[in-house]
Amino acid sequence: MTTITYIGAGVMASGLTFPAFENGHTIRMVGTPLDRTIIDQLQKDNYHMRLKRVLHTGITYYQVEDLDVALEGADVVVCGVSSFGVDWFTEKVLPKIPPKVRILSVTKGLLDQPNGALLTFPAYWQQKAPDLSIYAIGGPCVTRELADHEPSCVTYCGKNKKDLVWLRSLFETSYYHISLSTDVAGVETAVALKNGYALGVALTIGLQGGKDTGNYNAQAAAFGQAVREMERLIVVAGGQLESSMVGIGDLYVTVFGGRSRKIGILLGEGYSLEQAMEKLQGETLESVVIASRVARAIKTLHKEAEFPLLIHMDGVINEGKPATMPWKEFETTF
Amino acid sequence: MTTITYIGAGVMASGLTFPAFENGHTIRMVGTPLDRTIIDQLQKDNYHMRLKRVLHTGITYYQVEDLDVALEGADVVVCGVSSFGVDWFTEKVLPKIPPKVRILSVTKGLLDQPNGALLTFPAYWQQKAPDLSIYAIGGPCVTRELADHEPSCVTYCGKNKKDLVWLRSLFETSYYHISLSTDVAGVETAVALKNGYALGVALTIGLQGGKDTGNYNAQAAAFGQAVREMERLIVVAGGQLESSMVGIGDLYVTVFGGRSRKIGILLGEGYSLEQAMEKLQGETLESVVIASRVARAIKTLHKEAEFPLLIHMDGVINEGKPATMPWKEFETTF
Repeated sequence: MTTITYIGAGVMASGLTFPAFENGHTIRMVGTPLDRTIIDQLQKDNYHMRLKRVLHTGITYYQVEDLDVALEGADVVVCGVSSFGVDWFTEKVLPKIPPKVRILSVTKGLLDQPNGALLTFPAYWQQKAPDLSIYAIGGPCVTRELADHEPSCVTYCGKNKKDLVWLRSLFETSYYHISLSTDVAGVETAVALKNGYALGVALTIGLQGGKDTGNYNAQAAAFGQAVREMERLIVVAGGQLESSMVGIGDLYVTVFGGRSRKIGILLGEGYSLEQAMEKLQGETLESVVIASRVARAIKTLHKEAEFPLLIHMDGVINEGKPATMPWKEFETTF
Repeated sequence: MTTITYIGAGVMASGLTFPAFENGHTIRMVGTPLDRTIIDQLQKDNYHMRLKRVLHTGITYYQVEDLDVALEGADVVVCGVSSFGVDWFTEKVLPKIPPKVRILSVTKGLLDQPNGALLTFPAYWQQKAPDLSIYAIGGPCVTRELADHEPSCVTYCGKNKKDLVWLRSLFETSYYHISLSTDVAGVETAVALKNGYALGVALTIGLQGGKDTGNYNAQAAAFGQAVREMERLIVVAGGQLESSMVGIGDLYVTVFGGRSRKIGILLGEGYSLEQAMEKLQGETLESVVIASRVARAIKTLHKEAEFPLLIHMDGVINEGKPATMPWKEFETTF
């Protein structure tokens, strides 16, 4: 039996307790400083107020003050903070994890560097803590569906294949299927980008009035352009083209099931970012952050011409440009 | 002014008259032997009974007996037959086209050879008529939307870049955007495959009861697997990975807007192919043909393990296997 300590009591981490608990492992969950009420509620009756599901009885919940207790003797630490909690995780949790523990992250995002390079979170943490073994999860998996035992196929990535196989053995179930990849840069870049590009695909729905008109050519054209640009960015990030597939599945699910859809549609309908954010208050908008960061990196690298969709999204988000799609710029010769 | 003769009065060819006519070209349309009533109606009042749209006044329509007249002096021949009309086009039309005429095909499909090779229609025609210049159209474009001037982004492919640029100049409009590619094998393989793989994605909807449940993990997993297999098949066909993007956009639009969706859902709900075909009578089911053909080629090449989704679809279609998705087989290490 393995002890798995989850850091962060958000939706992503909580969903991932289902397969691990059902496989017979000891599950501990520590809230971040922002998760206080979620942990309070979970300690009372296992009900997760944001996931809107009851977690398995037998999981132990900790407030952030008990972090040390929750980490004691853990074999695996799941990093389940949102991208906005990465600094906190880096400063407060990472230094407490011994090298023999395997870290598995569900946090999605990229950090843009002054030279235009895009850094994945595993690479960032590896810089801070070179002795740690850090793995990450990518691929299409809406957490609510995972909790409901709907079929999902994801990819675990990291440097060491033996570790990957072991991590898979802990989490895999009849409904949660895990591919493995050593291409961390490719998988994590693909997966982070989908949040930004889902905005672009959803924008076309907004441009058509925000409702399902039964017209899909524009959405498909934006989806194809998103795939093209994601593949280009994976190459820029030093990843393998094959990993784009993980991000493409993820893009599909995000366009339909994700929060990025809502803001993309509102922007397409002509609302400014401020207005759209006001309408969606309470939602964390990682898609806006990732689109802005990647656009900044692309501009630093002077590669704007290769990424017309992302640069357009950045203009709509950050410069108040009209949402109308620059279709002509998507034309290419190959 | 350029004279463009369309062969076939089906939905695809008819939609493509809109951009070309609006660009001021002379448009002639010849029905196949199966298009007799469509041509009769078009000659009366320009109404296309299957597209359910009025075509532009000024197009000249011909029954098949007047093929020679319609081809006389044409600069471009658009091949708009369905994949079931390819033999007829090859035998009756191709020999009448002089080498200086450029052929542009919207017909999608692949022919499997005894050795397991998959042949695109342009490559097939080129074998039959080496002197002809043959180009083809791929990419997400539901014809009804093209007729309605919704934004669409497609790709024209063929050997000669100068010809491609010229063909684009004839058809491109403010709503119809054209990328160019010399990777005929890649683009045409990608585009043909999407019909087969759309079946597989739609199958997951059927497995969930055939209605929109708001769950997308399974669809996204099947979509990702479809992308992975399409990319593998493009490599097998000798195409470039970059061309997969054309097929991915096309897969997206087909999953939502296409006929393949309907049959895939019915198969997922547990109907046999026969029962599903009966329910969808009158629909041409190119997706079933392409899935069966490609599966046959894969078996000849002994590559079943690399294409579990397609082999599964073939089993459901041709061997009456249960529709339940083989998720475990989609797991891979890369």
